[in-house]
Amino acid sequence: MALPTDKPLQEFALIQGLQHRYARHAPGLVHGIGDDAAVVETSSSRWWHLTTDLLAEGIHFDLKTAAPESIGYRAAMANLSDLAAMGAVPRYLLIALAIPKTIRQPQVYDLYRGLMRACRPYGVALIGGDTSASKAGLFLSITLMGTTAKRRALFRHGAKVGDQIYVSGTLGDSLAGLQLLTKSTIARSSTPRRSQLSRSHRQFLIRRHVHPTARVAEGLWLNHGRLATAAIDLSDGLSGDLRHLCKESGVGAEVESDNIPLSPACHAYAKAYHVSPTQLAITGGEDYELLFTASPRSRSALERQARARGYRITRIGTIRPQKFGIQMTSQGRTRPLPLTSYEHFR
Amino acid sequence: MALPTDKPLQEFALIQGLQHRYARHAPGLVHGIGDDAAVVETSSSRWWHLTTDLLAEGIHFDLKTAAPESIGYRAAMANLSDLAAMGAVPRYLLIALAIPKTIRQPQVYDLYRGLMRACRPYGVALIGGDTSASKAGLFLSITLMGTTAKRRALFRHGAKVGDQIYVSGTLGDSLAGLQLLTKSTIARSSTPRRSQLSRSHRQFLIRRHVHPTARVAEGLWLNHGRLATAAIDLSDGLSGDLRHLCKESGVGAEVESDNIPLSPACHAYAKAYHVSPTQLAITGGEDYELLFTASPRSRSALERQARARGYRITRIGTIRPQKFGIQMTSQGRTRPLPLTSYEHFR
Repeated sequence: MALPTDKPLQEFALIQGLQHRYARHAPGLVHGIGDDAAVVETSSSRWWHLTTDLLAEGIHFDLKTAAPESIGYRAAMANLSDLAAMGAVPRYLLIALAIPKTIRQPQVYDLYRGLMRACRPYGVALIGGDTSASKAGLFLSITLMGTTAKRRALFRHGAKVGDQIYVSGTLGDSLAGLQLLTKSTIARSSTPRRSQLSRSHRQFLIRRHVHPTARVAEGLWLNHGRLATAAIDLSDGLSGDLRHLCKESGVGAEVESDNIPLSPACHAYAKAYHVSPTQLAITGGEDYELLFTASPRSRSALERQARARGYRITRIGTIRPQKFGIQMTSQGRTRPLPLTSYEHFR
Repeated sequence: MALPTDKPLQEFALIQGLQHRYARHAPGLVHGIGDDAAVVETSSSRWWHLTTDLLAEGIHFDLKTAAPESIGYRAAMANLSDLAAMGAVPRYLLIALAIPKTIRQPQVYDLYRGLMRACRPYGVALIGGDTSASKAGLFLSITLMGTTAKRRALFRHGAKVGDQIYVSGTLGDSLAGLQLLTKSTIARSSTPRRSQLSRSHRQFLIRRHVHPTARVAEGLWLNHGRLATAAIDLSDGLSGDLRHLCKESGVGAEVESDNIPLSPACHAYAKAYHVSPTQLAITGGEDYELLFTASPRSRSALERQARARGYRITRIGTIRPQKFGIQMTSQGRTRPLPLTSYEHFR
């Protein structure tokens, strides 16, 4: 379909354009975009998992520094990451947009392109949504649905005292990437520090921020194999998300901070900019890695299977009784894990 | 639970407050608010219906003239009406809010109170959501899920040539109520016209706008009894929504405009303010009545059962071939139905 270029946005024309562009048959989909509701088939042998996010211009993204394609991509990835943390297969997507007059149709198409680029590897189908004008700012609401087998999901509330704490991937990269993007004009004019950070490390960190990867396959593996006792995705940062998991499980935690996995690029960034890489890893949000707990009995199976599948997982601590609190240990010294969770209301 | 009064909004505290206030067990709900996703059980004998809306301050509501409780109530009702038009039982609700600094916690609680007041008669459970800051304006996103029996739903695409066109209730009341609310300061200072409109008629019209009723029971009846061939809810107005139904069904329509059901209050309003009541009925959105089509063979069963159940339905026209277009007939004269659908992008 030919794209309209820069005509004023017309709600129905836009919906029809997107319907033609992205509507396709998907397993279990009875009726997608174009009726009062989307209709899907279900099965008694499955649980449905639903997650929703509302992203606001100036809070979650800045149209002056981020491309609409990346905004869409990251928004979808944040929701895919929520389903990964449940061990669910992502299936269906609903998108609602409130669009200010300053946005032109090609930008809206770019946003959808990013959303669908994130979803396509998982076979997620766009089944519905809503579009509206906005007096001020672009707002994007996503609802994502996924499935697991019945009575088989990763909850936040299953961690037991003595369980080992793991994370996937490396932490802090997304925050370092964001800082590089926002510092980029300064860095370009005064280059002494920048010279210590190679071009490939810069690109790695920026890519980790702009195009993160939800750990959907890792979540499915942990859930199918009954390998984890609890899980959450790292969207608010290790400090905040570990707190959520502990609260729901009624436990405390001891994090061995020297074991937190860091990428070579994050180490190089921390050295170049004289910041603590551990601090980046603890406070940085939007890594979209999985934080999960596992019984010590599962340790060898977990670590062997992860190696065989090429999944990076790292043991970073131990679940303790609730009265222990949430502590961080480094070189024999124990202190409370800094409370630096990302909160939107600031 | 005691309500916090006017502390600055804290995302997690707010979520926890709402969780305690509205979380309850609901049939099929495995896990509600508090994990990465909400989890529900499903059944192979059912279809799931999903609808989502994003409402923007200054576009869909004005905090200067509308109470937060009414904003929440109407937002939920709009989505309940979408499910009514599918013939579905509403089940689960997800709410996402972007909240500017100017909004205080009690207003957010009032908004939720309105949302839940609309949902409670149907046993709908709040199972998840998201909250965020907003740089400009209050934004509210709702996702509502409902169920029908498998292969049993009211779609827009089933209308056949010769089918009769019906609407529930009366049309135009919501627009008249909105005009009364926005004209109220003028009306108070210059009373001659106002005197022609009784207090009870004013109250009726304003109530129809502020606290509309989705026709959930009527939708279930039409669907269970296989009485309708197609259905849509009247949110954009008769002119726009009949067009949607005809487009999806590949048909035209002839509306007998003198048969459009009008309330005595709407008649009185039209007389007092020298406007056409038919025009109000055709162009007015947000009545949340059902527009549906039925085979002429179903006519006697439909009208008999509606009387027995106390549902008001009115036959307003006939489905014609697509090439007939969408026409309006009055006293022997036929002309195109005015194209006055409510579009958000203006």
